[in-house]
Amino acid sequence: MQIMMDIGTTVLDQLQKPTLSFLLGGMMLAALGSKFEVPQPVYKFIVILLLLKVGLGAGMSVRDADLLSLVIPALAAALTGIAIVALGTRALARLNGVSKIDGMATAGLFGAVSASTLAAAMAMLDADGIAFEGFIGALYPFMDIAALVTAVVLGRMSAQHTASQNATSDGTVTMGGGTGGAAFHVNRELVRGILVDTLRSPAISALLLGLALGVLAKPDVVYQSFYEPLFKGLLSILMLIMGMEAWSRLSELRKVAHAYVLYGLTAPLVHGLIGFGLGLIAHHLTGFSAGGVVLLAVMAASSSDISGPPTMRAALPEANPSAYVGASTGLGTPVAILSIPLWVWLANLVIGI
Amino acid sequence: MQIMMDIGTTVLDQLQKPTLSFLLGGMMLAALGSKFEVPQPVYKFIVILLLLKVGLGAGMSVRDADLLSLVIPALAAALTGIAIVALGTRALARLNGVSKIDGMATAGLFGAVSASTLAAAMAMLDADGIAFEGFIGALYPFMDIAALVTAVVLGRMSAQHTASQNATSDGTVTMGGGTGGAAFHVNRELVRGILVDTLRSPAISALLLGLALGVLAKPDVVYQSFYEPLFKGLLSILMLIMGMEAWSRLSELRKVAHAYVLYGLTAPLVHGLIGFGLGLIAHHLTGFSAGGVVLLAVMAASSSDISGPPTMRAALPEANPSAYVGASTGLGTPVAILSIPLWVWLANLVIGI
Amino acid sequence: MQIMMDIGTTVLDQLQKPTLSFLLGGMMLAALGSKFEVPQPVYKFIVILLLLKVGLGAGMSVRDADLLSLVIPALAAALTGIAIVALGTRALARLNGVSKIDGMATAGLFGAVSASTLAAAMAMLDADGIAFEGFIGALYPFMDIAALVTAVVLGRMSAQHTASQNATSDGTVTMGGGTGGAAFHVNRELVRGILVDTLRSPAISALLLGLALGVLAKPDVVYQSFYEPLFKGLLSILMLIMGMEAWSRLSELRKVAHAYVLYGLTAPLVHGLIGFGLGLIAHHLTGFSAGGVVLLAVMAASSSDISGPPTMRAALPEANPSAYVGASTGLGTPVAILSIPLWVWLANLVIGI
Repeated sequence: MQIMMDIGTTVLDQLQKPTLSFLLGGMMLAALGSKFEVPQPVYKFIVILLLLKVGLGAGMSVRDADLLSLVIPALAAALTGIAIVALGTRALARLNGVSKIDGMATAGLFGAVSASTLAAAMAMLDADGIAFEGFIGALYPFMDIAALVTAVVLGRMSAQHTASQNATSDGTVTMGGGTGGAAFHVNRELVRGILVDTLRSPAISALLLGLALGVLAKPDVVYQSFYEPLFKGLLSILMLIMGMEAWSRLSELRKVAHAYVLYGLTAPLVHGLIGFGLGLIAHHLTGFSAGGVVLLAVMAASSSDISGPPTMRAALPEANPSAYVGASTGLGTPVAILSIPLWVWLANLVIGI
Repeated sequence: MQIMMDIGTTVLDQLQKPTLSFLLGGMMLAALGSKFEVPQPVYKFIVILLLLKVGLGAGMSVRDADLLSLVIPALAAALTGIAIVALGTRALARLNGVSKIDGMATAGLFGAVSASTLAAAMAMLDADGIAFEGFIGALYPFMDIAALVTAVVLGRMSAQHTASQNATSDGTVTMGGGTGGAAFHVNRELVRGILVDTLRSPAISALLLGLALGVLAKPDVVYQSFYEPLFKGLLSILMLIMGMEAWSRLSELRKVAHAYVLYGLTAPLVHGLIGFGLGLIAHHLTGFSAGGVVLLAVMAASSSDISGPPTMRAALPEANPSAYVGASTGLGTPVAILSIPLWVWLANLVIGI
Repeated sequence: MQIMMDIGTTVLDQLQKPTLSFLLGGMMLAALGSKFEVPQPVYKFIVILLLLKVGLGAGMSVRDADLLSLVIPALAAALTGIAIVALGTRALARLNGVSKIDGMATAGLFGAVSASTLAAAMAMLDADGIAFEGFIGALYPFMDIAALVTAVVLGRMSAQHTASQNATSDGTVTMGGGTGGAAFHVNRELVRGILVDTLRSPAISALLLGLALGVLAKPDVVYQSFYEPLFKGLLSILMLIMGMEAWSRLSELRKVAHAYVLYGLTAPLVHGLIGFGLGLIAHHLTGFSAGGVVLLAVMAASSSDISGPPTMRAALPEANPSAYVGASTGLGTPVAILSIPLWVWLANLVIGI
């Protein structure tokens, strides 16, 4: 009984914190049909400031960091991204009413990372006084790019496979070796194309720019006088927007199979566990901090809301956006943000904070 | 002679303060034909931040407030809103060249509240070190909604009355009881509709969201690190915009009857007196502060510039926007803002600050 | 050898400072084809805040300044603007492939002032602890307006001259005295028109508004709580935008004569020297500070990026924007910003800081 009350108090306590309460506030506004909205250009600018802040902070930490201590977590991040997509593609393919290509696009978004969710987790750890490596922001692109590239390559290969099967059944003769070589060639080109596109996307380039400036320049003064102090406030506005966005995307999910609802609700927790597990290994290998393990779990649990959807639309035009955006922005993102306290609790249990 | 000089010094002193000087600066820019403008999305965002700030501050105060001490001022606020519309509708109907429906729409906007004017008054009281109840922001919706609902209901009833008169003179037989019942039914539906629309309007929902988060969550950290410090600066930008807007709206007034100019110049002062009087009663009944009385007078003197006009356009499409927007934004708002020092002076005289 | 290393260290040190590193970061982003962009309304708002800040600061200083100490630097600023245009028009006219009117428009932009470059220099002097007169911002319009008016008057006179020559060769009889009188009349009207247009342009009116409020009102509180603290951070964003803009404008230069590349690369240095020289005279006459001399050189070296191009387009519609915008925004602005440390070094050498 006492435990139940403790849990209840903790959950209520977390929900009252700025990050989660503004997210819920945004969902409430949308649910009640409010015409409140944050103008699109302002939203974009808030995201830019947030990504620059995360990048700058990570860059300044990388500058002073032992590079070896970075390698293992970066590897863990990339592995997590690939594992989530591989697992998600299989899981979704077995569910009713999910086309292969839609499943791959959805798994790709869930493997990619949400900057806002990561920022929300950082703000919550800061508020709770839980330490984490400053370079964590630098892990973002490893997981994000690994997941997007894996999903798009799988998607393109599957589309090509279908096309060549159709061609074969039309009576065309194909030579195994030749096709294989061509496929391999196409894939290298394809991977390069996706890598370049992803690196050039607004979100990833803002983050990498911040990283580069943090490592190579001396932005410390402007970081401390501008980016750092505005961070929490702008995050509260962003959470409002994401809450409203999540609610309005939910309606799109009605148009597609129920399987997406199931996946959107459970996948963030499974993915978070994968990230947590790989982070735990890094903890034992290199002394990666408990806060870092939490943030790796949050990155894994999160799904891409800014850079992912346009990448998917461009790279897999056959996939249905109602399915993958509905599942990720409508369910994946709020579940991921709301489950941040879970990973803190788990890290406290397993590692001790 | 000495008194005249004192008054002159005081007025000059007030006009030099950031709030009023930026308002006058904006009017000057527009008068001189400057092409300076603040982009629309930024303007909208500044208003959102300002309303969230007022709401959050009020909410956090309501959380700690004795609820009984809130009831009387809230009642005074609602009564003020209704009284202004009732009075304004009659006054405008007697003036030359004012149609009944235009008069109601205009009175409705003058009864509703301007968030920017209220914020300007709060900033000026803060600068002068005059205390007021933290929950004042929570009174805003009471006056605003009471005024808008009264105006629209009166407008719709008058339109229906005209329509049924026309119908009768066309030879149609109507049964008194039946029509009355229908009108009553329509009115309940109508009031519900306006209430819902007003609550869903961007301005009121931002304010109510802030209130709800202030009461139910713990936004104190983000309030003190972001919303509160940015308030004065963003208000200075907003005053610039409102000054320019006021000047450019003045030209629209030329298209309509002179009666609107008379009303726009004098109504804020009469309305402020009504608010001041009802606030004074609350002061004697519940110890409502002198600063609170000033702010109630300012709310009464102010006319709606953000949420009001679209509500009127939707609810009373027959009314002429040049008349009601010209009178409220072109004259009512600057007169209300410029008369803030008057209420401070009056409160000092009557109550003592 | 030691000297070379010292210079290398100093240059590297300067390039690592926020202002220059964000500028280079923006150029890198554009060069790598990033899709990163700061929304237009936000960009405009940042420029407004920056100009208000510079204006307010200058105005508050003018309020307390000995007016006589202002006259000489203001004269130096205006003379610099006229000299740059006179020199540039002649120099460009001698270069291959440059039409007379394009040369005048380009020289006009290079004579006008860039608020962002000036702001960048102020931030760099502040960071290095180098003092300068607070009223420097008030010199901006003197140089800017002098240069724009000179360029447009020269341009219009040349166009009229060409037109009247054509008319004469067509066999029309013209009377010297009469035409001269008309030309003189047209010029007075023309100068008045350009003056009014320039004063009404968004950039100049924001600056003058700030100046007027700084002189006549008491914006000190809001200046210190809002405009001043946000300045460095917003400037870093602006430098990003200008770097991206500069890179993308470079491609436009390929469409026009190579002469513009030569001019764009060297003119800022020559112009800076002119400003430095006239500033040095003011230093000896009135004790104008070394920091002030640096800022006058930077203003002279800078070319207009915000208010200039639209003024030129309106006043000299025959001129080719690819030429003058490409040369000024693509080359002039980055060269001017990157050469700021040069003027600091020179001032240290000649005056001693």
